[in-house]
Amino acid sequence: MDRLEKQIDFLLEVDKLKNVLRRSSVTDGSRRENSAEHSWHLCMFALTLAEYAPENTDISHVIKMLLVHDLVEVYAGDTYLYDEEGNKTKAARENEAADKLYAILPDTQGDEMKKLWYEFEKCDTNESLFANALDRLQPILLNYTNEGSIWRENHIKKQEVIDHAFRLTKLSHPKLREFALNIIEKAAQNGWLE
Amino acid sequence: MDRLEKQIDFLLEVDKLKNVLRRSSVTDGSRRENSAEHSWHLCMFALTLAEYAPENTDISHVIKMLLVHDLVEVYAGDTYLYDEEGNKTKAARENEAADKLYAILPDTQGDEMKKLWYEFEKCDTNESLFANALDRLQPILLNYTNEGSIWRENHIKKQEVIDHAFRLTKLSHPKLREFALNIIEKAAQNGWLE
Repeated sequence: MDRLEKQIDFLLEVDKLKNVLRRSSVTDGSRRENSAEHSWHLCMFALTLAEYAPENTDISHVIKMLLVHDLVEVYAGDTYLYDEEGNKTKAARENEAADKLYAILPDTQGDEMKKLWYEFEKCDTNESLFANALDRLQPILLNYTNEGSIWRENHIKKQEVIDHAFRLTKLSHPKLREFALNIIEKAAQNGWLE
Repeated sequence: MDRLEKQIDFLLEVDKLKNVLRRSSVTDGSRRENSAEHSWHLCMFALTLAEYAPENTDISHVIKMLLVHDLVEVYAGDTYLYDEEGNKTKAARENEAADKLYAILPDTQGDEMKKLWYEFEKCDTNESLFANALDRLQPILLNYTNEGSIWRENHIKKQEVIDHAFRLTKLSHPKLREFALNIIEKAAQNGWLE
C-alpha cells in the first residue's frame, strides 16, 4: 500500500494546478483560465487536430506530454509568455519545482514522468513539436474569441505574438500555421494588437 | 480550411466545459471543481495508476476516453451521482447533447469521438471499466481531503458511497477497491458520512 499511497499523495498534490491562473480567459471571458483545464483543453486539441501532425506522430504520446507539461507550475507558478523578467528565471524555478514534485512518486515513476516534461521542453521530436505548437495555438484562439482583451491589457504587439508563436520551429505545421497567422492578422486589423 | 474551421469551432465549443461545475471541491476547498479540470485530473490518475489496471489494458485509450467522457455536459450539465431525479433523465439529456455537439465536427470525426463516449458509458471493456473506476475514486479522495464537506452538506450515507462506487463492477480493481473502502471507512468513523 505504501506505493499506492505515494501515488495518491502525488495526485492530490497536482490538484493544486487547478488554482494556478494563466493570463488567458476562458471563451466567455468570465474569468482567467487555470493550468489544469488548459492542459485538458490542449489534449482535446491533440485528439481533434491529430491529422495536422507529421505522419507517424504518436498522438497518445503527445497527449501524455500535454497532461504533465505544466505540472511544475504547482510550485513555480505560471510565467506569462511575454514576461521578460519572469522568463529569465523560469527554467531554474521550474527545475527546482520538478525535483520537489516528482520526488513524491515511488521508485523510478517520477523520473519517467519528468522525462515526458523534459521532452516537451526540449522540443526536438515530432511529438514535442506538435505539443508545443498546440500550446501556442490555443491561447491565440482564446484571446481572439475574447476580442483580444488580454493582449490589449498587456499592450502586446502583433510581431510579438508572431515571434512567440513560431519561435523554435513551434507551430511549424503548415495548415495550423496558416490558420494562426490569419487569426493574428484579423486581430491586428480589429485593433486588438498594437 | 473548411474542415479545420469546423474542428476549431468544436474546440471552442467544448471550452464551455470549464464552466460546468461539479459537486466536489478542489483539494483546498476554495471552490467547486469544474468538469474540464476534473477530466484532466482523471487522466493524471490513469497515467499514474496504470499498473493497477488488468494486464493488456491500453492506458492511452483510457486517457482518450477520459478526455471526452464529460463533454456532453456542455449542454446537459453535470448530474450529481446521488441526484435520483436528475439521473432518471440523464441518458436522454446526454444523448441529445452528444448529437448536437459532435455534429460540429467534419465528416465521421464526430462519430469516432462519440464512440469513445459510448464505450465509457457502456463500461464493458477493460479500458472503460478502469476509466469508470477512476471516475468513482477521484471524487471520494477530493471529498475525504475536504473532511467530507460535500457529503455532509448532502447528507450522504456511507452505504450510498459504497453502492455507487462499486455498482456495475466499477472500481473492481483489487488494490484501488481496498484503498477506497479504507478511505470511506475512515470518513464514516470521522462522522463525515451518515
